[in-house]
Amino acid sequence: MARTRSKSFWSKYQIAWRQKKSLVCVGLDTEHKQLPQCVRSDRNPIYTFNKAIIDATKEYAAAYKPNLAFYLAAGVKGLEALKLTIEAIPEDIPVILDCKVGDIGNTMDAYLSAFFDEMGCDAITVNPLMGKDVVKMMMNNEKNFAFALALTSNPSAKDFLMNKDLYQDIANWIKTFDSKQLGAVVGATQTDYISKMRKLLPEQIFLIPGIGAQGGDLKAVLSNAIKSKEEPNILINSSRGIIFKDSSANFAESAALEAEKLRDEIKKGIK
Amino acid sequence: MARTRSKSFWSKYQIAWRQKKSLVCVGLDTEHKQLPQCVRSDRNPIYTFNKAIIDATKEYAAAYKPNLAFYLAAGVKGLEALKLTIEAIPEDIPVILDCKVGDIGNTMDAYLSAFFDEMGCDAITVNPLMGKDVVKMMMNNEKNFAFALALTSNPSAKDFLMNKDLYQDIANWIKTFDSKQLGAVVGATQTDYISKMRKLLPEQIFLIPGIGAQGGDLKAVLSNAIKSKEEPNILINSSRGIIFKDSSANFAESAALEAEKLRDEIKKGIK
Repeated sequence: MARTRSKSFWSKYQIAWRQKKSLVCVGLDTEHKQLPQCVRSDRNPIYTFNKAIIDATKEYAAAYKPNLAFYLAAGVKGLEALKLTIEAIPEDIPVILDCKVGDIGNTMDAYLSAFFDEMGCDAITVNPLMGKDVVKMMMNNEKNFAFALALTSNPSAKDFLMNKDLYQDIANWIKTFDSKQLGAVVGATQTDYISKMRKLLPEQIFLIPGIGAQGGDLKAVLSNAIKSKEEPNILINSSRGIIFKDSSANFAESAALEAEKLRDEIKKGIK
Repeated sequence: MARTRSKSFWSKYQIAWRQKKSLVCVGLDTEHKQLPQCVRSDRNPIYTFNKAIIDATKEYAAAYKPNLAFYLAAGVKGLEALKLTIEAIPEDIPVILDCKVGDIGNTMDAYLSAFFDEMGCDAITVNPLMGKDVVKMMMNNEKNFAFALALTSNPSAKDFLMNKDLYQDIANWIKTFDSKQLGAVVGATQTDYISKMRKLLPEQIFLIPGIGAQGGDLKAVLSNAIKSKEEPNILINSSRGIIFKDSSANFAESAALEAEKLRDEIKKGIK
C-alpha cells in the first residue's frame, strides 16, 4: 500500500519542525554489505534493518532520505525493500528519495510516476543540468517537492559547479521557482559558500549532507545556513553516522542515540 | 544469468560497425501504457514486448539502449523486465543503460555495481555536473564505457548547457579522458553545434538521440557528426520511431522494417 501523501512535503516539513524541533534527516544509505550480522538471515535484510532503524529514530527524525543507488544494487529484492521502507515511514514524516535524476519529457514523467505516485515519496533530489524542463512537470502537483543539486564539496566540484560560478547560476535559477516546491542541496562545508547560498536563496529549504558526526563545523554551518531561528529552513542529513554507528544487535538503539544527539546539537547550534 | 561481458563496449561497438555497417541504437523506452494489446495479458508484458523487438531487430542494431525510467515506473516487475531484457540481447551487441546518473563515492559505486556487475550492461549515460568524481571509478574496469551528457536540444538547454558555453567546457573535460571509455551524448539537431562538438572531440563516440523518423535532417547531422567515413564513431538513437511504430500484432516486424530503413538511410548519408 502506497502512502497516501495527504499533505505536501512543505507542510510536513513545517509540522515536523514545530512539533519535534528536529532538523535531522536520517539518510537510509542501506548498503547490503554493511548490514549487521543479526539481520542477514532475514528474508529481506535491507527492509528488516530499515524498519528497525525507523521505529527507533522516528521520534528524532524530521525526514528520511533513502538513496536509490543502494536499493538498485540489491536488485529486485532491493527495490522491494525500498517500497516497504517508504511504507514503513510514518505518514507525517517526509520521505526524500535521493536519486539525483535530471531528465526531460516522457522520461522525466516516468521517473515522477515511479517515485511520487507508485512509491509515495514526498520529495526527490534532482540534477538541474538540463534546465527547467527537469522540474516543470514535478510542479504540476503542489504536494511534490525537489531539491536541486546546487553546491557540492567533493574534490571535482571545481570541474563545473565551482567554475565560472555555475553554483550561483543554479541558485539564481532555483529562485525563479516557488520555494514551497524547490529547495537546494548545499553540500559544501565551507561556511562562506553556505552563507553566500543563503543570501541568494533567502526562503528555500537547504538539504545539507556530509556533516553527520563531525560536530566540529556544525555550529558554524548552522549559523550561516539557517533562514532564521524561528524558521531555519534547513535539513541536516546524516547517513552512515547514524544508521551504521553500531554493527551489533543493538544497532537500532545506537542509531536512536545518534539521531537524538544530532537533533540536540543542532538545536543548541541554532540558539 | 548476467551477461558475461567478454569484450569491452568499445570493441563490441567497433565489431558491430564493421560486420553490420549499422550505427542504429534501438532505444528500448518501453512505456507500459504504449504496449500493443497483444502482449498485455502476458505475465511480464514489457519483457515479452522487448524480447520480440530484440529478436526482430538484432540484425540491424549496433546497440540497444533501455531507459531506466520506464522500468522503474513499472515497479518490481519492471526491474525484472529490465534484467531479462538485457540478458536477451546478444552478447556481441552492446547495451547502453540510459540512466543519466551522476553521483560520487560509495553511491556511485553502488550504481556501477547495479548496472555493470549485476545487470551486465556495457555502457551507461552519466550526468557530469559533479565532475571527475562521477566517472573515475567507472574507468577502473576497461570494459566499462559511459556517455556524458554534453549538449541537448530541449528548450531549457539554454538555462545552463548553452549558457556561458558550458557544453564546450564539458566537451573539453571529456577530452581529458580515454576515448575508449568516455563518449558524449550530443542531442542537438542544429548542425553547427554538432560540427563544433566534433572539432572539440575528434575521437569520441557520440550518442545522438532525437532523430528517429525525421529523416530530413539526418544527412546534415551525419556529415557534421562523423569522425570519418571509415570510422564514424557515432550512434544514432531512435526509440519510439522504431519500437512503437505499429501497435498491431505485427509490431516486431514493423520495428524491424524501421530499424532496417534507418540503418540504410544512415549508410547512404555517410557516403
